[in-house]
Amino acid sequence: MQLPLPEKKKCLLILADGAGDRPIKELRNKTPFQLSRKPHIDRLSALGEDGIMDSIAPGIRPGSDTSHLQLFGYDPHQYYTGRGPIEALGVGIDVQDGDIAFRCNFATLKDGKVVDRRAGRISEGTAELAKELNTIKITSVPGVQVIFKESVGHRAVLVLRGHNLSPMTSDNDPHDDGLAPLRPMPLEHKEAAHRTSAALAEFIEKAHLLLRNHPINRQRKLPANYILARGAGKLVKPPSFESKYGFKGAIVAASGMIKGVGHMLEMDVIQPKGATAGYDSDLIAKADAALEALKSHEFVFLHVKMPDLAGHDGDPGKKIECIEKIDDMVGYLLKKLDMAKTVVVFTSDHSTPCSVRNHSGDPVPIVVATEGVRLDAVKHFDETSATRGALMRITGKDLFPIILDLMGREEKYGA
Amino acid sequence: MQLPLPEKKKCLLILADGAGDRPIKELRNKTPFQLSRKPHIDRLSALGEDGIMDSIAPGIRPGSDTSHLQLFGYDPHQYYTGRGPIEALGVGIDVQDGDIAFRCNFATLKDGKVVDRRAGRISEGTAELAKELNTIKITSVPGVQVIFKESVGHRAVLVLRGHNLSPMTSDNDPHDDGLAPLRPMPLEHKEAAHRTSAALAEFIEKAHLLLRNHPINRQRKLPANYILARGAGKLVKPPSFESKYGFKGAIVAASGMIKGVGHMLEMDVIQPKGATAGYDSDLIAKADAALEALKSHEFVFLHVKMPDLAGHDGDPGKKIECIEKIDDMVGYLLKKLDMAKTVVVFTSDHSTPCSVRNHSGDPVPIVVATEGVRLDAVKHFDETSATRGALMRITGKDLFPIILDLMGREEKYGA
Repeated sequence: MQLPLPEKKKCLLILADGAGDRPIKELRNKTPFQLSRKPHIDRLSALGEDGIMDSIAPGIRPGSDTSHLQLFGYDPHQYYTGRGPIEALGVGIDVQDGDIAFRCNFATLKDGKVVDRRAGRISEGTAELAKELNTIKITSVPGVQVIFKESVGHRAVLVLRGHNLSPMTSDNDPHDDGLAPLRPMPLEHKEAAHRTSAALAEFIEKAHLLLRNHPINRQRKLPANYILARGAGKLVKPPSFESKYGFKGAIVAASGMIKGVGHMLEMDVIQPKGATAGYDSDLIAKADAALEALKSHEFVFLHVKMPDLAGHDGDPGKKIECIEKIDDMVGYLLKKLDMAKTVVVFTSDHSTPCSVRNHSGDPVPIVVATEGVRLDAVKHFDETSATRGALMRITGKDLFPIILDLMGREEKYGA
Repeated sequence: MQLPLPEKKKCLLILADGAGDRPIKELRNKTPFQLSRKPHIDRLSALGEDGIMDSIAPGIRPGSDTSHLQLFGYDPHQYYTGRGPIEALGVGIDVQDGDIAFRCNFATLKDGKVVDRRAGRISEGTAELAKELNTIKITSVPGVQVIFKESVGHRAVLVLRGHNLSPMTSDNDPHDDGLAPLRPMPLEHKEAAHRTSAALAEFIEKAHLLLRNHPINRQRKLPANYILARGAGKLVKPPSFESKYGFKGAIVAASGMIKGVGHMLEMDVIQPKGATAGYDSDLIAKADAALEALKSHEFVFLHVKMPDLAGHDGDPGKKIECIEKIDDMVGYLLKKLDMAKTVVVFTSDHSTPCSVRNHSGDPVPIVVATEGVRLDAVKHFDETSATRGALMRITGKDLFPIILDLMGREEKYGA
């Protein structure tokens, strides 16, 4: 008897952002995964090998940026240098090696104090304001160019481009309303740090002059008359996904940070109509986009932000609702996927327990399903059941090799 | 529904030194943990997430010094350079960067041979002998100062202080009775190693001359007339516990080595009256000291040495007795602790199987308990039950991040 030769597979990695949780006292010490009706995700559990995963390491509280880099097989300690560059990539700025990027807020300054760090959660007109800010010329530091782009709501990104710049600069964000903004200062005695903090200070001053007189702001009770910058980072360009793995990868996402990671790795970033980073996202539109992408890409990543929002909101009822919506999406996908030809992974990037209202260091459940994978007895996808699975406890670093191996696309280490 | 905002917690880490064991053939293949009556430690197991922990790595036999450094989140590969400096800190010497420290024994030399490595387990008069040894001036090597201090019983510590010294020197301890002492030799061809071994050799010679004529020794059958040195180490000063974590830490311990680790990390080291490193230690006095310390410190470490002694003695009956004494202490503590505000950890630094009579590389059971933690089905604290817990298998490196995360005191890695 001889079994047929194996075929190479594709992979769909579905990620429910921040869905992992802790037992909730108010809900009989159960987690949202345990309380959700989710027949399709549970079916995936039954079809695959289950386990728990620390995306960075046990106890470490991962950001969404660092954890996603790690889940795609990129060491965040090497490529993560602050959130700025990823945000800049997320809004579509063609960030280049050596650029310094900052996350920014449109804010309201009054009598020398930041009275609203979000300028009344401004939602319209920021593109026009940003256009104005791109006219700013830095004169105190030679050879520095300004690129400014609005993002969602009050958010925006500033990129300083030029030779000899450094992320070792403090920023001007006082991080609370009612305080005076800070003066950007070099964080080390090197010319690059001095150049960068001087350029940032000049930008902020000139931005204020332009913004406070802008017609859009004249009508606002809380004018977007000031820019707060934070999270300075210098892009360290990693090898592209395709050059690293030898096949094409696509990301279906709406969240700026996740799209930023996709751009950073030069993956195809797809945001279908109706897909948002909010509770209202059209998950079937996302599923369709992922299925379409699987025709032309070997690896497709499908990101759903909403359970993380519910975790940050401390709302377990909402989180259960999100998980059940995701379950509908998984059911829709499973009907159309051929498990003989596809590795389907379902997991989270980190836990966002409702009782913590932020990311925690608790591991997340994970299932890796495809025809022929080692099966275990786990039939429910949740934090406790997963600890009895065949994968046992892995880290994010292990995930991509496991996926590549099951796809039949991994090089042998040795002979 | 919105859950309340979480509060920051404190942590009490209780450590039963060397309590982990292997199945004992003579006792129906059970371990001391399995054979002990320990309702309170078992209750902790039920209240927490359980697992097994390799304090360094699977199979590695940890020392108490290296494992404690690791359990407090300090990489022993970076900060552990031999036992000498930790012993020196433990006896209260203000060890400085660059000092070379040795563990010493008072021993008996007769006809050029070490006839008793412990000088008849001398227990009195060593302070006087040490005083004498501090008068020694090193003349063969310029700029080297001698600091000598007695410890418990026949034990003592020697510190050589001066510029350009090195721990790369062999020592004079033949490690068995009836052998001639060895001559300290440089272990590398560098000036610092030559200087240090020469200074050590001169110290040992001069110490012998002083000791053999000392009145205390004239009355002894086994005179403490010779110094055996070993475990040369150079202090590499780690950042203090408080500067590393941003909150205060205290150690309740009687064992010199553990107190040494505490001094090394500039933690508050507390040894209440009645607390010893022996079988007779007053564990309720230790518990009270820990409860008191929790009022003014965010992290308190409570160390109990006795099960390790029983392991080294190869006495499982004694070990069971020690565990049951510790259980009484845990019961006393649990009555007074608020699990909503405290993370309580119970574990060992390493296994000291009675059948091995020394530290082994077997992992130790661990439980991390606090309100809201992920519960598992483990209700008995022992080597086998713990393997079915939610923590699964972690290393000592993971412990402090897990603790910090549950305390709500960990920075996020990324955004």
